[in-house]
Amino acid sequence: MRSDRRPGPTVRAGVRELRDGRWTAHEDKVVTEEPLEVRLASPGVPARRVSVTMRTPGHDFELAAGWMFHEGVLDGPDDLQQVAYCTDRDLTPEQELNVVTVTTSVAERRTPGGRYPGITSASSACGVCGADSIEEVFAGLAGRPRTVPQVELDADVLRGLPDAMRERQRLFDRTGGLHAAGLSTTAGELCVVREDVGRHNAVDKVSGALLLGTASLQGPPVLVTSGRLGFEIVQKAVAAGVTAVVGVGAPTSLSVELARGASTVLVGWSRGGRAVVYVGADRLV
Amino acid sequence: MRSDRRPGPTVRAGVRELRDGRWTAHEDKVVTEEPLEVRLASPGVPARRVSVTMRTPGHDFELAAGWMFHEGVLDGPDDLQQVAYCTDRDLTPEQELNVVTVTTSVAERRTPGGRYPGITSASSACGVCGADSIEEVFAGLAGRPRTVPQVELDADVLRGLPDAMRERQRLFDRTGGLHAAGLSTTAGELCVVREDVGRHNAVDKVSGALLLGTASLQGPPVLVTSGRLGFEIVQKAVAAGVTAVVGVGAPTSLSVELARGASTVLVGWSRGGRAVVYVGADRLV
Repeated sequence: MRSDRRPGPTVRAGVRELRDGRWTAHEDKVVTEEPLEVRLASPGVPARRVSVTMRTPGHDFELAAGWMFHEGVLDGPDDLQQVAYCTDRDLTPEQELNVVTVTTSVAERRTPGGRYPGITSASSACGVCGADSIEEVFAGLAGRPRTVPQVELDADVLRGLPDAMRERQRLFDRTGGLHAAGLSTTAGELCVVREDVGRHNAVDKVSGALLLGTASLQGPPVLVTSGRLGFEIVQKAVAAGVTAVVGVGAPTSLSVELARGASTVLVGWSRGGRAVVYVGADRLV
Repeated sequence: MRSDRRPGPTVRAGVRELRDGRWTAHEDKVVTEEPLEVRLASPGVPARRVSVTMRTPGHDFELAAGWMFHEGVLDGPDDLQQVAYCTDRDLTPEQELNVVTVTTSVAERRTPGGRYPGITSASSACGVCGADSIEEVFAGLAGRPRTVPQVELDADVLRGLPDAMRERQRLFDRTGGLHAAGLSTTAGELCVVREDVGRHNAVDKVSGALLLGTASLQGPPVLVTSGRLGFEIVQKAVAAGVTAVVGVGAPTSLSVELARGASTVLVGWSRGGRAVVYVGADRLV
């Protein structure tokens, strides 16, 4: 499986399948999952490892840049000097493709991985855990919340986005094993769709696409996701300043609170003819 | 939402819902998501924070103990001295319920959070990322792989497990927003089922239930999961020494490799009359 220099998004696996009471042996396509190490270098600070994520290879630079953006390390394209695969002398060519270095043109605006403050320190002082109000959770957020554009939105447009995205999930069609995320205009134009074995990675990739200019979008962005709407997804959305989040699955208590605090429209269960608006119904027309 | 001392597994939210072309306003149940801080104390070492996870409250002790087990900090029940909510003087009663301290009776067998070696250090030496063989990934695994019992398994029994578990997913019925995990005997007896907003948490909880004695199981365990079968789920299964993993969703390239290396049976797409065996078909009868 690891003999190719550049792993594709799927690999083949011999399987035995039961269907309609009969067993058959055949080849199946399985989505590729590989570790990606992200390194960060900034003026005067040499590259260091800041994250390892299991991801589907492809759009790796977008993934690394988008992750940095959601973590608040970068504020926008101007903060970015370079994104490149690692070329350490001790890495094989194959290994190089699992290590991406992001170089910033300015000092880091925030230390990445700071979502749960103090998590890497030996301090027992509690950050997010003991927080008794959503304000404290906000204060501890990686990536400061941006101002969310309070524009009116068309409920029918939002409702249709997951179905529209589904039509562009090519890897899902082949493997059934991927999540997807997309960014759309408020008029329903899907500007970028990315797939990944990890839900959060897919969201990082679409933000990274805007950051790197491989996609562009006019006006306030709407985030579409194929999965459920947990805290971390809505946190990324809030950090990115999207005006609405639309998902196929259910939200959680914390994601509803977070969306309320940021005045981000939150729509769940959006498939077929159904949609449930958890936050921001007054902004829908 | 945070006014109750002990948050329940669901909270109410006012929503507007579109169905069959008509909008209605009503109350919906949303699954509770709250942070849980896990602290570790061992002989001679005071309690320190080692993990923060977003979880659905309930079975918190199982979650903390099971996570430690999968991380290789504990080897079994004998290593465990106490699991308790934190009673720091500076925590409010409500906050205490989001902080759990695990006290071991022996020295830590492994440093938790070591899944990706070096991730918290400033070293740029690459651990799992540059690994060019599954052996290196194994070597870096948190929780050493246990010997997997190479018993024969009934394909029909495995296939039926996700459907059997589904009948016991009470919270899912109310909110639609949860994952589940279960442990079964090779004869198909589901000994414990736990639900959580996080897939990995649900797996931690069922392992923790065995560890704490709130559930018991004779013979080699089979892990059942409601979601997809990515690297981290199979990693936990391998660390726990389960003989087979059965899931409703798709596996990934890395989870297939991992299951092969550990000789763990891996069955995906197991719902209705279907099942796909990715690893270990020769052990099925």
